[in-house]
Amino acid sequence: MAFNFTVTKECKNSRARLGQLETTHGVIQTPVFMPVGTQATVKTTTPHELEELGVEIILSNTYHLYLRPGSDVVAEAGGLHQFMGWNHPILTDSGGFQVFSLGPLRKIAEEGVTFRSHLDGSKHFISPEKSMDIQMELGADIVMAFDECAPYPAEREYVKISKDLTLRWAKRCQQAHTRDDQALFAIVQGGMYKDLRKESALELIELDFPGYGIGGLSVGEPKEIMYEVLEDLVPLLPGKKPRYLMGVGSPDCLIEGVLRGVDMFDCVWPTRLARHGMVITSRGNMAVRNLPFARDFTPIEEGCKCYACRNFSRAYIRHLLKANEVLGIRLTTIHNIAFLTRLMQEIRAAIAADQLLEYSRHFFQAFGTEK
Amino acid sequence: MAFNFTVTKECKNSRARLGQLETTHGVIQTPVFMPVGTQATVKTTTPHELEELGVEIILSNTYHLYLRPGSDVVAEAGGLHQFMGWNHPILTDSGGFQVFSLGPLRKIAEEGVTFRSHLDGSKHFISPEKSMDIQMELGADIVMAFDECAPYPAEREYVKISKDLTLRWAKRCQQAHTRDDQALFAIVQGGMYKDLRKESALELIELDFPGYGIGGLSVGEPKEIMYEVLEDLVPLLPGKKPRYLMGVGSPDCLIEGVLRGVDMFDCVWPTRLARHGMVITSRGNMAVRNLPFARDFTPIEEGCKCYACRNFSRAYIRHLLKANEVLGIRLTTIHNIAFLTRLMQEIRAAIAADQLLEYSRHFFQAFGTEK
Repeated sequence: MAFNFTVTKECKNSRARLGQLETTHGVIQTPVFMPVGTQATVKTTTPHELEELGVEIILSNTYHLYLRPGSDVVAEAGGLHQFMGWNHPILTDSGGFQVFSLGPLRKIAEEGVTFRSHLDGSKHFISPEKSMDIQMELGADIVMAFDECAPYPAEREYVKISKDLTLRWAKRCQQAHTRDDQALFAIVQGGMYKDLRKESALELIELDFPGYGIGGLSVGEPKEIMYEVLEDLVPLLPGKKPRYLMGVGSPDCLIEGVLRGVDMFDCVWPTRLARHGMVITSRGNMAVRNLPFARDFTPIEEGCKCYACRNFSRAYIRHLLKANEVLGIRLTTIHNIAFLTRLMQEIRAAIAADQLLEYSRHFFQAFGTEK
Repeated sequence: MAFNFTVTKECKNSRARLGQLETTHGVIQTPVFMPVGTQATVKTTTPHELEELGVEIILSNTYHLYLRPGSDVVAEAGGLHQFMGWNHPILTDSGGFQVFSLGPLRKIAEEGVTFRSHLDGSKHFISPEKSMDIQMELGADIVMAFDECAPYPAEREYVKISKDLTLRWAKRCQQAHTRDDQALFAIVQGGMYKDLRKESALELIELDFPGYGIGGLSVGEPKEIMYEVLEDLVPLLPGKKPRYLMGVGSPDCLIEGVLRGVDMFDCVWPTRLARHGMVITSRGNMAVRNLPFARDFTPIEEGCKCYACRNFSRAYIRHLLKANEVLGIRLTTIHNIAFLTRLMQEIRAAIAADQLLEYSRHFFQAFGTEK
C-alpha cells in the first residue's frame, strides 16, 4: 500500500498541524487545498500550469466522469492520470454528493441510488459497490466511500437514518474496494447534530479507514455552525490520520478549518468565482470585470507572482472578460489558484513557526470576513 | 523609420521568395502567416504560448478595439503591445473590412463610413483620417489604409467606383499618417476584374507605400479565380516591397499564394476552425470532436511537437470538446497554429532549396485540396 500519512508538527496554540501525505503518485504537504477538475480538467487550465502554480493534488468527480466520457474510456486510456496528463496525486469523490444534488431526478434505497443523467435523462444506478468499481477504473490515489449527504436544514430523524445508511454503505465500500494503490477514505455525516456526528465518527473509526472525510458541511448553514461542528468533531478523529473537510475553499474557511485541525480541503468556488470575473486578493474579493477597472493599469495584486499579475493589468483583464475572451477567465483562474496555493503555503509556514493565530489575525484584518 | 524589407532569395521555378521584414518590434521571416487577435488576444491563447509556437507577428482589429475597450484606453496603457503583453510585431487592419461587413448597419460616403456598433447599436463614423488616428493610438508596427472592399460578386461599375474611392482614401491616409515607427500599407482593390486590379496597383504604386495589401479576395469567389487574380496582379507590384494577401489562411491557399509571390497572410480560419473542434493535419482537416475518436488514444498528429500532441490523446481532446471544457479549444487552437507555423517554416525551407513545387506536390498528395 503506497499510502502513508505523517504528522510532522503540531501547532502549540491551536489544533493546526503539518503533515506529509504519501500517495502512489507523490507526496503532498498538508494542510492542502485541492482545486477541482470536475470533468478531468481544472476548468480553463493545463496540467502544466497547475504544476507551475504549485498545485500538488487535484480532485475529480466520479459522477461526471462516469457519465462522460465513461469510466471505461478512462480505464482504457490507462487511468485518469494518463487520460488527463496529470502525473501527480488525484482524489475522486464517490459520486454521492452529485447524485443527491439531482433532487427529484434520483431515488435512494438501501441498495443504492437510481437517478437520471443531467446530460441526457438516461437512467442509472450507483451503489457503494458500483462507486468503488468506477473509482477503481478511474484509478485515483485517494477514493471516497459512497455516502448520503443530508441537506441543510434537515430533521434529526432524517439525518440519523441517513447517517446509519452511510455507515452501512461505508462497510460495503470497504468490502468492495480491492485496489491497494488507492486509499479509501470514509465520510463522517450527522448534519449539524453533535451526537450524530460523534456516533458517525466512532462507528467509522472502528472500521479503521486510512483517512476521514467530513461531509455534509458547507451546505448552506452559517459558517459559525460549521466551525462549531468541527470543534466538536475533529478531536474525536484519529490523530494519525488525515482529515478532509469536503467542499470548502474560501480563504476564511480554510484558515478556520486548519485552526480546528483539518488537513485537506477542496472546492469549486475559487475557479468558479474566476469564471464570473471575480478575483481573490489579500484585501478581499474584487470584481475585476467592473467599470472602475477600465483604466486601471496595475496588476490584480501588487507583489503576486502569478502569470496574470506578472504580465497583465486589471484594465486588460477587464477588457477580456467584457469581450467574453477565454484568456480573461484563464487569467482570473490562474490568479485565484495562485492565491489559494500561496495562502496554504503561508499557513504551513505559520504552523511551523507556531504563529498561525497571529497570521490569521493579520489576514482577516486586511481580507475582512464573509460571515 | 524602423521599417525595412529585404528579399533574401527568389525561387528558381516559381514566384515564391524569402524575405526579412524589419519592424519597430522585431524582424519577421517571410513568407509569414499572421494569426488574428481580433480583440487584443489570439482567442484562447497567451502571448507566451504564441511565442513558444514560433509566431512572429499577429494581426489585431481596429474596428473591434475602437469600440471595445476604446483606442484611448489602449493608448493610455502605452499602446497595444503593452496592453496585451505582446512585445513582437503587430499589424492592425484599417477597420474597413469589418465596417463593410456590417451590411445595412453602415452607409458609405466620400468622407467616410457611418455605421452602428454591432455591440450596442451606437452610431459611429470612420473616415480615412479617423482610421489613421485610431491605428496611431493603437501603435501597431504595420497599419493599413482605410479601403472599401467590394463584395463578390459585384458589377464592374460598382467595383470601379469602389476602387477609385479606395485610391482617394489611400491618399488621405498617407497625408494623415504621421507616426514614423509604423509602416502604412495601401490595399489594392478591383474585385475579380483584371484591368481594374491593374489600375488600382499602378495608381497606388505611384504613391510609393512601403508595402501593399491585396484586398477583396477570399470573399466567396472560387479559389481558381483568386489564384488567377494573383497571377496577373503580383508581377505588377514592386519586387522590393512586401505583398500581403488579406484574409487567407487555409494550407492550400497559403502554398498557392506563396507560389504566386505573396509574402504575408492572415486569417481567422485556423483558430475559428479549432473552436469548432476541427484540427488541421497533414492528411487534411479532422473533426476530432466526432465519435470515431472517443477511444482513439493517439495524438492529433503523430510527430507534431505542439503541446497538445506531446501530451494529450484525441480521445481526451474529444472528451473536453464534448464537455464544453475550455481546455479543449485551447488545445485545438494550439495545434492549428503550430501546424500553420510549421507549414510556413517548411515552405521557407523549400524556397531556400528551390524545392517549393516538389514540396507543394507532396503536401497536396497527402492533404488533398479543398477546391
